[in-house]
Amino acid sequence: MSEKVRLASVGLGRWARVLARGAQRGDVIDLVSCYSRDEQKRQAFQDEFGIGRAAASYEELLADPEVEGVLITTPNDTHRDLVVQALEAGKAAYTDKPIAHTLEHGVAIVEAAERSGVPFAVGHSARRLAGSREMKRWIDDGRIGDVSMAEANFSNERGLELTPEHWRSYPDKTPGGVMIQLGVHHADNLQFLLGPARSATAHARKLYTAAHVPDVVMSLVEFESGALGYIGAGWASPGIYTINLQGTKANLRYDLDFTHWDEGHLADDYSELRSQAHGQSEREVVELQRTDMFREQLEEFALAIRGEATVEVGPREALRALAVVHAAIASSERGGQAVELAEVIEAAGAGAAV
Amino acid sequence: MSEKVRLASVGLGRWARVLARGAQRGDVIDLVSCYSRDEQKRQAFQDEFGIGRAAASYEELLADPEVEGVLITTPNDTHRDLVVQALEAGKAAYTDKPIAHTLEHGVAIVEAAERSGVPFAVGHSARRLAGSREMKRWIDDGRIGDVSMAEANFSNERGLELTPEHWRSYPDKTPGGVMIQLGVHHADNLQFLLGPARSATAHARKLYTAAHVPDVVMSLVEFESGALGYIGAGWASPGIYTINLQGTKANLRYDLDFTHWDEGHLADDYSELRSQAHGQSEREVVELQRTDMFREQLEEFALAIRGEATVEVGPREALRALAVVHAAIASSERGGQAVELAEVIEAAGAGAAV
Repeated sequence: MSEKVRLASVGLGRWARVLARGAQRGDVIDLVSCYSRDEQKRQAFQDEFGIGRAAASYEELLADPEVEGVLITTPNDTHRDLVVQALEAGKAAYTDKPIAHTLEHGVAIVEAAERSGVPFAVGHSARRLAGSREMKRWIDDGRIGDVSMAEANFSNERGLELTPEHWRSYPDKTPGGVMIQLGVHHADNLQFLLGPARSATAHARKLYTAAHVPDVVMSLVEFESGALGYIGAGWASPGIYTINLQGTKANLRYDLDFTHWDEGHLADDYSELRSQAHGQSEREVVELQRTDMFREQLEEFALAIRGEATVEVGPREALRALAVVHAAIASSERGGQAVELAEVIEAAGAGAAV
Repeated sequence: MSEKVRLASVGLGRWARVLARGAQRGDVIDLVSCYSRDEQKRQAFQDEFGIGRAAASYEELLADPEVEGVLITTPNDTHRDLVVQALEAGKAAYTDKPIAHTLEHGVAIVEAAERSGVPFAVGHSARRLAGSREMKRWIDDGRIGDVSMAEANFSNERGLELTPEHWRSYPDKTPGGVMIQLGVHHADNLQFLLGPARSATAHARKLYTAAHVPDVVMSLVEFESGALGYIGAGWASPGIYTINLQGTKANLRYDLDFTHWDEGHLADDYSELRSQAHGQSEREVVELQRTDMFREQLEEFALAIRGEATVEVGPREALRALAVVHAAIASSERGGQAVELAEVIEAAGAGAAV
């Protein structure tokens, strides 16, 4: 690669800084501009990351010929407009999970991405953790045998801290509450590991949060492979991030302390993968290579702009993760009846393309 | 207590020996007789446990004035007839989980037990493990805060070993397969911990066993308290026995190596309970007192015969555990729709009494 890929940050909150630090740990990306509606935030972001200029409007940013792609970290309900606008301006776009808050928005992004032909990536970084990658190797090379069950849980205390000012407190911006914010990670992880999900069966509850969205969601997931999955997502307890796989030859148990999640290059140091072989009760520690999930996904996106990499989580993969969330919401509304992903995707207006 | 309580063992297989060893670890119970259709098994059982006599028929056993109660360890589909016959003969009766294979049989046992007025107990021993008791204390004294989620898994490899000769291979004797054999333990544990369940939502699959029953069942459980539960039961992977509770003040994670399950007095030595406090990611080991689940439940049953103890898991508690299993089976048959326990119990012909 002759020169660094020139990207711009959009929405300059906590997560934009996490990603900027990830990008600056490598030498593939040059953050050349940034944009937020708040001028003070723009200045602070420029200062923190040594960024030469800021745009006064999103249109100005997209008109900047130096900018090859944008890193969007705004609230979920703004993803569609910002992404579509970028793609239509010929700029590559990256946004964080979920692809959008609704499947309608998600489908619009899929269509815009496929029309535009420029790279679009969604930051489902969790599948890049060393433990996720190692579990996938055990599946692919047959060490785990046939997987019959997968259980995952992502929970923390944030539902107890939500205030009325926050967009995460309302179902129009955060449908499914904890399920779209935390559960969606495992909706992607489990499909990365086990292949496409067919349906979700779920119960959602608003128990202990003051917000107007569920703080406890339990979902069963049927996979096209025949395996069954479970995703627990809670916002009313100390933090948990686990994935357990049960196979005919071995079990794998993954446990991550996600309080270090923001430092993508250190996250693996706070994780543990253990294996339990057929006929054994002992669990052995599996050595994990270290990864840097944020840097890796951003560099992949950047290199895809130059045609030197392929985006792993594009619009279709991200839409399938979101579809698990919305099938779970629909299931809970129907008293726990299984809801097929195909149904909610079609209801969102997706044509044959999705 | 002036003298030992005189009990007789019925069905002299592996589990009868586990229970006899449990009874003989204490000095409350005297095993005075035994019965199996197989005369050789009777003789071997007498020899192994130093039992003075054996009955040539079940009727003969129940007519023995020395025998105060029977310990029934025959296949699930024989529980009803043997229990009801014992109770009608005025003998106290103990049987192992599940109370019966069908709710119709379970309801018949409940009615017979309440008509008879003599003690009837079901061996849901798992709730007596030190970890279960300690989790209950954390709930009762408020240390865990409000519990929003409970996840439990009981799995082993036995589905892969089932042969056509075995009664566990057929749905008429083992409806729900792994769910009635393993999942029923957690159906009792979670109701012991969180109170009555209201409904089950489940998917059952026959994936890797040669038997004609499911080897993978995942169930969501709604509790009357509002909390949500999950029970995973698998017969196609290395062994797992876990209970995780998520509360607003703490999480508890219990993990048992059940390969030592048969030695009830040692099981706690192969278990671990860890707590995770609000705002913390570290998990601290919780000290567990030792218990002897089989001895304890048998002595409680024996002392209940003398009016010196109360049976903890009687017919109603055991029926509610079985009702979770059958609600889960019905739910899976209906494509994962939530099924209320009340519906399946009523459908089994239970009157207002249950």
